[in-house]
Amino acid sequence: MPMPPSPPLGEFARIERYFKPLAAGMPGALGLSDDAAVFEVPPGLQLVVTTDAMVAGRHFLADDPPAEIAAKLLRVNLSDLAAMGAQPYGYTLVTSLPRTCPESWLEGFVAGLAEDQARYGIGLLGGDSVSTEGPVTLAVTAFGLVPRGLALTRSGGQPGDLVLVSGSVGDAAAGLALLQGRLGSLGAEDDAFLINRLRRPEPRLSLGQAVRQQASAAVDISDGLVADLGHIAEASGCHAVIEAARLPLSPPLRRLVANDSVWLATALTGGDDYELVLTAPPARLAGLTALARTLGLALTPVGHLSEAAGSPVSVIGADGRPLALARTGWQHF
Amino acid sequence: MPMPPSPPLGEFARIERYFKPLAAGMPGALGLSDDAAVFEVPPGLQLVVTTDAMVAGRHFLADDPPAEIAAKLLRVNLSDLAAMGAQPYGYTLVTSLPRTCPESWLEGFVAGLAEDQARYGIGLLGGDSVSTEGPVTLAVTAFGLVPRGLALTRSGGQPGDLVLVSGSVGDAAAGLALLQGRLGSLGAEDDAFLINRLRRPEPRLSLGQAVRQQASAAVDISDGLVADLGHIAEASGCHAVIEAARLPLSPPLRRLVANDSVWLATALTGGDDYELVLTAPPARLAGLTALARTLGLALTPVGHLSEAAGSPVSVIGADGRPLALARTGWQHF
Repeated sequence: MPMPPSPPLGEFARIERYFKPLAAGMPGALGLSDDAAVFEVPPGLQLVVTTDAMVAGRHFLADDPPAEIAAKLLRVNLSDLAAMGAQPYGYTLVTSLPRTCPESWLEGFVAGLAEDQARYGIGLLGGDSVSTEGPVTLAVTAFGLVPRGLALTRSGGQPGDLVLVSGSVGDAAAGLALLQGRLGSLGAEDDAFLINRLRRPEPRLSLGQAVRQQASAAVDISDGLVADLGHIAEASGCHAVIEAARLPLSPPLRRLVANDSVWLATALTGGDDYELVLTAPPARLAGLTALARTLGLALTPVGHLSEAAGSPVSVIGADGRPLALARTGWQHF
Repeated sequence: MPMPPSPPLGEFARIERYFKPLAAGMPGALGLSDDAAVFEVPPGLQLVVTTDAMVAGRHFLADDPPAEIAAKLLRVNLSDLAAMGAQPYGYTLVTSLPRTCPESWLEGFVAGLAEDQARYGIGLLGGDSVSTEGPVTLAVTAFGLVPRGLALTRSGGQPGDLVLVSGSVGDAAAGLALLQGRLGSLGAEDDAFLINRLRRPEPRLSLGQAVRQQASAAVDISDGLVADLGHIAEASGCHAVIEAARLPLSPPLRRLVANDSVWLATALTGGDDYELVLTAPPARLAGLTALARTLGLALTPVGHLSEAAGSPVSVIGADGRPLALARTGWQHF
């Protein structure tokens, strides 16, 4: 391939300085000095593998702090592991960076990775670094472990199951609206809360692992509650009904909805919350909410599954009549 | 995230049409309809994981046929598995495509993936599709299996070991020179041979698996023989000596070298050949070359390892004197 002009630091020097320390705790990473990582899956466990990419200007704002970009990159992947009920183990990373990317950006990015590695008990297993004339593009493949046969999937829902949502929804979409100036300030504290929900979503790993044998299906909310619950409905061969009045809303979002009901649609369809949507038989409701409480997390019933109908999801308004939504969620592409 | 304008086909429709068929033979892929893939590593085996990305204009030419881009993308990853002695199992794929990417490109790309999946007995496990304003960027994470403790690494070389190279070197660099017009035509047959070596490198999977217990170290040639052998030398705490006169050259490359010795430097430092470099004790030479012969592959001794010295690699010319090289290989970044 054509020899590129010398970057500030060559690929190997960058690996040495920035990425090797991230692999320090992972013997299988072979110090990032080999062609591949080698590791074992302990007996009785299955490997869970997910991959998610982010592009500057589309999945994050180009001038977002690099540590927050790193946090989001890891957490959207960990959220997929959470939805499968898996315990995270490690990840590989592909960075496509403009040649002009300053070392300070990389330092912040790596610091963000290191912080979340410690937070979630994971380490770097390998990766690749390429340069691009285009926007910063980042891809993580995350690895988790789950006891054999116990992975949560999207396909186990049954008619009659309740639909439950962890935490609150719509916050990340409001945070994005704030950052993009489509929503005026709600006061420093609310603004910070909503923007933090966008930039540092909390993958519901403990919840996913705890409900493995009680939930019938699970998905994480990346594209919006309606769209992602639609995935459960389709994979399970069911129809899902959401009662909009039961949506779990944070205090700032509740105030927004009270002022303008468009925010209710945002809570239903806004992406990037990375909460879990679970389905479970009604008999398990008390146990599940109690379990979530021990994790300090709300788990709110918002609807139920019924026999398959025309559309995967319908939404019932507070007046008991169906709500029409302009869109069901983001179509990333 | 901001709602992008509608692409020709939405993400889900593209997954349905193009990517689901690639996952058909992989039960762990869950039909690409879940948050993650789930699979088991059979007892006694370890998982080998590698990831390699390619950017248009840097790792391939933007107007290369998409099936050949797909082949190269898979094969550079499989080559890393070959260097570890692993048997390939499956892969995940991240595509970052401009919104203007025509369906015909995607069709050709997927056809190339399907062809190589069949050729190498692998399947798609999962992935992500994002759009970009920048060049096409593709990343594969490939998974292989190896008996516990038998993965080949870069670090097992010993002073006195021979250095062996599979196939021939320098062909891919000459193919690139042809495509870029830096080298005039050598005749249709030679041109096709060299360009095919660039676009469809053959990962030496059978060789890697066969020599697992006989080679002391291995690496694949992606950045050039000198650079990649340097990785073995450094990881093994040795110095490597290459005798340039012993380099295995294809007939077209031999003719080029006879005309202009700059092509010898190209054979030493040109990337993208994806041959294997092995080290092994001299006593194993006969067995190893016989074994390679049963695979229809040349395995040529080109030098040896000695005690660590200043530089990781030195090259001895046909006259027995050291050759100075302008560069040791590509620094991708």
